[in-house]
Amino acid sequence: MQISQKNLSEKQDLIYDVIVVGGGAGGLSAGIYLQRYRLSSLIIDKGKARSFWMQELHNYLGLPPDTPGRVLLQKGKEHFLSLDGDLLNGYVEQVIDEGETFSVRVKVGRQNSVYPVFRTKYLIAASGIIDKLPMLDDMQNVYEYAGYNLHVCMICDGYEIIDKKCGLFVGSEANIPLVESVSWFTPKITVFTHGAFTVSEEMRLRLKSLGYQLVETPIKQFLGENHQMNGVELVNGETVELETGLIAMGSHYHNTYLQGITLEMQGNNLVTDKMGRTSHPRIFAIGDLKVGLNQVIVAAGDGALAATEIWREIRRNAGAKPWLENLSA
Amino acid sequence: MQISQKNLSEKQDLIYDVIVVGGGAGGLSAGIYLQRYRLSSLIIDKGKARSFWMQELHNYLGLPPDTPGRVLLQKGKEHFLSLDGDLLNGYVEQVIDEGETFSVRVKVGRQNSVYPVFRTKYLIAASGIIDKLPMLDDMQNVYEYAGYNLHVCMICDGYEIIDKKCGLFVGSEANIPLVESVSWFTPKITVFTHGAFTVSEEMRLRLKSLGYQLVETPIKQFLGENHQMNGVELVNGETVELETGLIAMGSHYHNTYLQGITLEMQGNNLVTDKMGRTSHPRIFAIGDLKVGLNQVIVAAGDGALAATEIWREIRRNAGAKPWLENLSA
Repeated sequence: MQISQKNLSEKQDLIYDVIVVGGGAGGLSAGIYLQRYRLSSLIIDKGKARSFWMQELHNYLGLPPDTPGRVLLQKGKEHFLSLDGDLLNGYVEQVIDEGETFSVRVKVGRQNSVYPVFRTKYLIAASGIIDKLPMLDDMQNVYEYAGYNLHVCMICDGYEIIDKKCGLFVGSEANIPLVESVSWFTPKITVFTHGAFTVSEEMRLRLKSLGYQLVETPIKQFLGENHQMNGVELVNGETVELETGLIAMGSHYHNTYLQGITLEMQGNNLVTDKMGRTSHPRIFAIGDLKVGLNQVIVAAGDGALAATEIWREIRRNAGAKPWLENLSA
Repeated sequence: MQISQKNLSEKQDLIYDVIVVGGGAGGLSAGIYLQRYRLSSLIIDKGKARSFWMQELHNYLGLPPDTPGRVLLQKGKEHFLSLDGDLLNGYVEQVIDEGETFSVRVKVGRQNSVYPVFRTKYLIAASGIIDKLPMLDDMQNVYEYAGYNLHVCMICDGYEIIDKKCGLFVGSEANIPLVESVSWFTPKITVFTHGAFTVSEEMRLRLKSLGYQLVETPIKQFLGENHQMNGVELVNGETVELETGLIAMGSHYHNTYLQGITLEMQGNNLVTDKMGRTSHPRIFAIGDLKVGLNQVIVAAGDGALAATEIWREIRRNAGAKPWLENLSA
């Protein structure tokens, strides 16, 4: 059921089999599997998963290629709730390992917040990442185009930029080598640093040798209409004409609630086995938080794997259930 | 494009980037990604993937839980073709490793067959498995119920059998321990051997101690109507009332075309890394052929992973593409 402030208290007396942090594609797929395995699960969703911002999912098998990410998420939520899963809109602040269980402290409500604590045997970290965006004075101007033709994922949308004049918006020198991959789709690349750092001489020469443009003047605003970005205006009044863009400034990782628990990491990503189990035997990680490819269909598959592994463990511990009627006869 | 006997010859002059053997969920998802990566791909589909037989996919994120498997496959084919992928209905007979390329020999047409040979740099083995079924005199009687309430996958359909009288149809003693997992969903289990083998005394006692029934008399036919099986008639004229069934007789693996190539196996499954690469650097395996969980959503994710890994390799070998206009200026 959808949990609200009214029925918070009864749910705090339970010990869930699994709490899933994050109601994106990975978390919802996990929840659907968990409920179909007759396990009790609670998905805690802060809202606005990365896929929520995707205006069109072009590569999700079975869905028309113009399906908005939010439609997939809405369908997933309805599916999960139809299986009697519990869903709470809230922000997970802290997870504490109690030995056999975890306690999960949640902030519910932006104003007059309450802080319920839920308990669970297993935890699935499915809270994902969100892309860093160019920080302009008017952020609404960025939101106007991000997720439309100002892309954030080359794997997802490289096809959309083929042979177009493409702005590549980077946050540090370490982001720039992505130009080589982007050039697979289009060589007409202009790299924008937004004045955030100084480009090394070596990189400058490398870009020049490939004919890519480099713009280091900070951006004033994106230009365009109807969510179609067609250029950039710089703070010095110059404009640069573009047909599409790709933001590659790195990501924020939604994982601070795990800070109290030691988990094996590779960079910012959680290391897992093939079923999604982290170095903690009762914590799984799926989707963009784990090492791997950040794709909606992969996250959905991850959810099935983690849920199945947890079910297998719980089921084996429970042992076979006898047909009592026949034993008493 | 959909390839027919008319345009077979022109396609035999190409070297594809990737040939995908199998047009099930894994192969189609791979094909969609490959085409969006601007690679050339050919899917060779013998038809009737395992998911084709599933009357309802209950756990595929984003699709209504009554979506027939064949609808998913049809949507995937349309999506792939809309991206200019090549699709051929045929049966892959043999793959030969030529060093830099593979040659792939295909049987096209059941009657007056022709045997074109295609060439490719990479191969994705996505041809899957198919479930062994009880061999009755009238196989039409089995097809009448299989994929409806006579299930073949506990992971997929355990939820559907909850607390129902369930027949478990096994092919050997090695299949019988699955009863313990099935009992998580329902303890009302009757094991049918169809007289195919002799059950050991130890197993007999184990089943009895849990109250499960054992029927060793061969089956004459399944009973029911409108695709809903409600019991079994045995060859001795007795009937056993059931509400659902699960066939667990093992699987046929569609992998004979790989026989000439040495690949690391685990049982009947191909061993792969996390991206689906087998022990051969240019052969990937996805979906049910590889070690892992046999689920449609997992196979779809697998396809994305294998396609991406192949693209990365081809792209790196190609190097960065310069913006020529700026170099000549």
